Amino acid sequence: MSDPTQHQPRDPGNRVKIFDTTLRDGEQSPGISLNKQEKLEIAHQLARLGVDVIEAGFPITSPGDFEAVQAIAREVEGPVICGLARTSKQDIEAAWNAVRDAARPRIHTFIATSDVHIERKLQTTREDVIGQARAAVAQAREYTEDVEFSPEDGSRSDIQYMAEVIQVALEEGATTINVPDTVGYTMPGEYRAMFEELYRLVPDLRGVTVSVHCHDDLGLASANSLAAVSAGASQIECAVNGIGERAGNASLEEVVMALATRGAYFGATTGIVTEEIARSSRMVSNLTGYVVQPNKAIVGRNAFAHESGIHQAGLLAASSTFEIMKPADVGVTDSDLVLGKHSGRHALRARLEEFGYRLTDAELDEAFRRFKDLADKKKDVTALDLEALVGEEIRERQDRFTLLSYVTQAGSSITPTTQVEVEVRGRKRHGKSFSNGTVESVFKAIDNAVGMKGSLADYQVRAVTAGRDALAEVKLAVQVDGRSYRGQAVSFDVMESSAKAYVRAMNNAAAAKENH
Amino acid sequence: MSDPTQHQPRDPGNRVKIFDTTLRDGEQSPGISLNKQEKLEIAHQLARLGVDVIEAGFPITSPGDFEAVQAIAREVEGPVICGLARTSKQDIEAAWNAVRDAARPRIHTFIATSDVHIERKLQTTREDVIGQARAAVAQAREYTEDVEFSPEDGSRSDIQYMAEVIQVALEEGATTINVPDTVGYTMPGEYRAMFEELYRLVPDLRGVTVSVHCHDDLGLASANSLAAVSAGASQIECAVNGIGERAGNASLEEVVMALATRGAYFGATTGIVTEEIARSSRMVSNLTGYVVQPNKAIVGRNAFAHESGIHQAGLLAASSTFEIMKPADVGVTDSDLVLGKHSGRHALRARLEEFGYRLTDAELDEAFRRFKDLADKKKDVTALDLEALVGEEIRERQDRFTLLSYVTQAGSSITPTTQVEVEVRGRKRHGKSFSNGTVESVFKAIDNAVGMKGSLADYQVRAVTAGRDALAEVKLAVQVDGRSYRGQAVSFDVMESSAKAYVRAMNNAAAAKENH
Repeated sequence: MSDPTQHQPRDPGNRVKIFDTTLRDGEQSPGISLNKQEKLEIAHQLARLGVDVIEAGFPITSPGDFEAVQAIAREVEGPVICGLARTSKQDIEAAWNAVRDAARPRIHTFIATSDVHIERKLQTTREDVIGQARAAVAQAREYTEDVEFSPEDGSRSDIQYMAEVIQVALEEGATTINVPDTVGYTMPGEYRAMFEELYRLVPDLRGVTVSVHCHDDLGLASANSLAAVSAGASQIECAVNGIGERAGNASLEEVVMALATRGAYFGATTGIVTEEIARSSRMVSNLTGYVVQPNKAIVGRNAFAHESGIHQAGLLAASSTFEIMKPADVGVTDSDLVLGKHSGRHALRARLEEFGYRLTDAELDEAFRRFKDLADKKKDVTALDLEALVGEEIRERQDRFTLLSYVTQAGSSITPTTQVEVEVRGRKRHGKSFSNGTVESVFKAIDNAVGMKGSLADYQVRAVTAGRDALAEVKLAVQVDGRSYRGQAVSFDVMESSAKAYVRAMNNAAAAKENH
Repeated sequence: MSDPTQHQPRDPGNRVKIFDTTLRDGEQSPGISLNKQEKLEIAHQLARLGVDVIEAGFPITSPGDFEAVQAIAREVEGPVICGLARTSKQDIEAAWNAVRDAARPRIHTFIATSDVHIERKLQTTREDVIGQARAAVAQAREYTEDVEFSPEDGSRSDIQYMAEVIQVALEEGATTINVPDTVGYTMPGEYRAMFEELYRLVPDLRGVTVSVHCHDDLGLASANSLAAVSAGASQIECAVNGIGERAGNASLEEVVMALATRGAYFGATTGIVTEEIARSSRMVSNLTGYVVQPNKAIVGRNAFAHESGIHQAGLLAASSTFEIMKPADVGVTDSDLVLGKHSGRHALRARLEEFGYRLTDAELDEAFRRFKDLADKKKDVTALDLEALVGEEIRERQDRFTLLSYVTQAGSSITPTTQVEVEVRGRKRHGKSFSNGTVESVFKAIDNAVGMKGSLADYQVRAVTAGRDALAEVKLAVQVDGRSYRGQAVSFDVMESSAKAYVRAMNNAAAAKENH
């Protein structure tokens, strides 16, 4: 590998702090609205993940936000708990009241230093901004010794002026200085040079934590964050799945795994428990409703998956050929070798065995024939699809419940009603329901037949192909006795897929109960 | 802004070629399987987008791939049409036969040069690889003057050895040399240094096109591609929406917009018609089934959207405050100011007016009340959700068709049947259908009532919240007379949402017909 000429390695073992803003900048994303309980759940997971700082919210903005930050400060142990505030007295007071009960509270205050923000958004002057910054940091320091200051839109600010503002914040006792790329405009080389210049202009920065906060408008948030680390920054502000305003913030999982994979290059590590990354990603996606695209780095469904024959052969030969990280490192259980039109019989058997299905040769022949038909005709044949469609009768051998039939009646002015027949351990059981929703009526009728109570936690339908022969894929999650079970099914009818997926989830729930 | 110390600007106006591999590396993504017609459709769109090279496929891998590449070579005008080949005789022959009918055909051949690939995947020696590279480029040059050579896993190769292989390829007449980061391992500074070193070791590289191909395993594909451009590379291999093996390739939209937004920094531009980016993204997402996450740079639903009060105020004050690109630059019609729990009455009115709804003050009051209820209770309230739920009676004023009622009966052993009542221009019409799918039966009954024929092209259902009060959001696309119309609806029942969304799409189709 080439020896990079412009890189001066730092002492290995430098610790880069991870400042997670999933609950603040992430929660400000359009359409995301987490309630207190959901925020607490995420905050507890962030503590398990080992983040150094949780920015829990922006307390002045609403009573709900205040209460959530306060609850996190009181309950969540481990990370520093931080509240955001503009420079006004009330903002900083609200932030302090929200975080004061934490073992280690932080107030984060900010004001814009770029001329475009000063003139057009704040409609004030550079002098006034300096005064506001001074007063805000001083006020925050009366409450706590841990105060972070950010010159907003730092990357587009006049660097001499921004250095002055930072110097003022340091004089008033700020302990972390964060220089954000608020609009996602900067380039890695340029941003690195900016930090190097700031260290030159403000030598006192060497005595505090220098932080970076990047937005992904041009797809460079992670690269810019790492460029700042190369220049000496030791805190990265980031969010799980990279959520945040517009195109979001730097992805926690990307910057963390870059530092984990290339620790020797950066001479730095983080304190993150990387094995908790996949779980954190799923939780944030489920609670925010923000999907993670299949090709998302680290946490996408396919981040560790290979289809093409060439890559699969290489992967089987040695995982180092194509994998620079092990799926297990980020909490993904196996290298999800997805099957496609080029996959062979051996790969199919291997994949099904991972799901616990031991097939006879004849069964494998039949499964392979169906698989090839499906792979020719349909897009997006994931291993789970396969399991749903290929393994039907094999799966049913080990299932407790089998859906025999259902009939639903629904309409705009009638209450949906469903009757089902389910085989439970060889006996035929009937179930029926009236319910508010058509699909819900099917689920309730199944509950009635199997004698369990499920509560729908997630429900997604997708047409796998267009037109008359469209396969409807249903993925759902059902809560039973406080635990969540997933089910998935593919069929030519959305109602049938829904019913089958639900039965699948209930089978998983029943199996879990027997095993405990 | 800081003046980057390490950046030497190049002559402005350098043209960076965009080599699109959506149909090759993208199509190799797990679960993607495009047919010939779909590939042609994407290729035509890539030509409209103005890419310089279309890598249309890997012809040796299957007869289907061969035929698709051949069809693209014969039909699609503008870009160079390229086929991929390993170094074997048959590979290169197949690639040539597939692309030979193009106005400007290219053969792209590759072989790995990293020791881990040579030893474990190819199970051969460095000497043998040199021989294969030489023979392959020589054979390709017998067919065409446009030959690209890639040392696979270049970023992990011994640079001295890789330089030797590249020199051999150049001697045999390769006109483009592409040095890929096959496993997504490199860091921008390191990759840039590698290219600078390669230029030093192989001065002949100055006479050909140097290309870059990056994978996004650590979220750095775009940054690495741009780092190579800073070092002198003048071709970027990328894919629409960043699809490709594992975490995918560099996103076309990210590298293109970085060069467009920061042209002065790079002293380089591309020939891309950026206004076609949004359409290209939607097409690739629809045909591959790969969703684009809301916070995806440039093409995500929220890339240009702001929720928080602070940012909205700034945005209304001056779009330069928070937007470094105009949505229209990439073909997004307006800055999709999404409404959230912090949004005010003025924003709601503005948003609804964009949809063409002029509200009386009383109507706005009612709409605002409903909106606030929704924003408190539900996640992910996009402007379109609002339109569906808030604007019900207002929208119906201008609709041609209104769904009055429906009744559906479905089950595992009966053919789904639906009866609907639709008001068409003040008259009540009845429709009925038998159909294979439950939802399809509703759509066919609506067709029957309104006297038009729609064909479902896309159908997605999402539960907006969990539990009993879940809102079911349906988004669908319907083809009528060869054009596509979208409809969306939110209700507490998935069947009702589906019916309403379909009626909405048919209203759009009817309106379009009247206006033409």
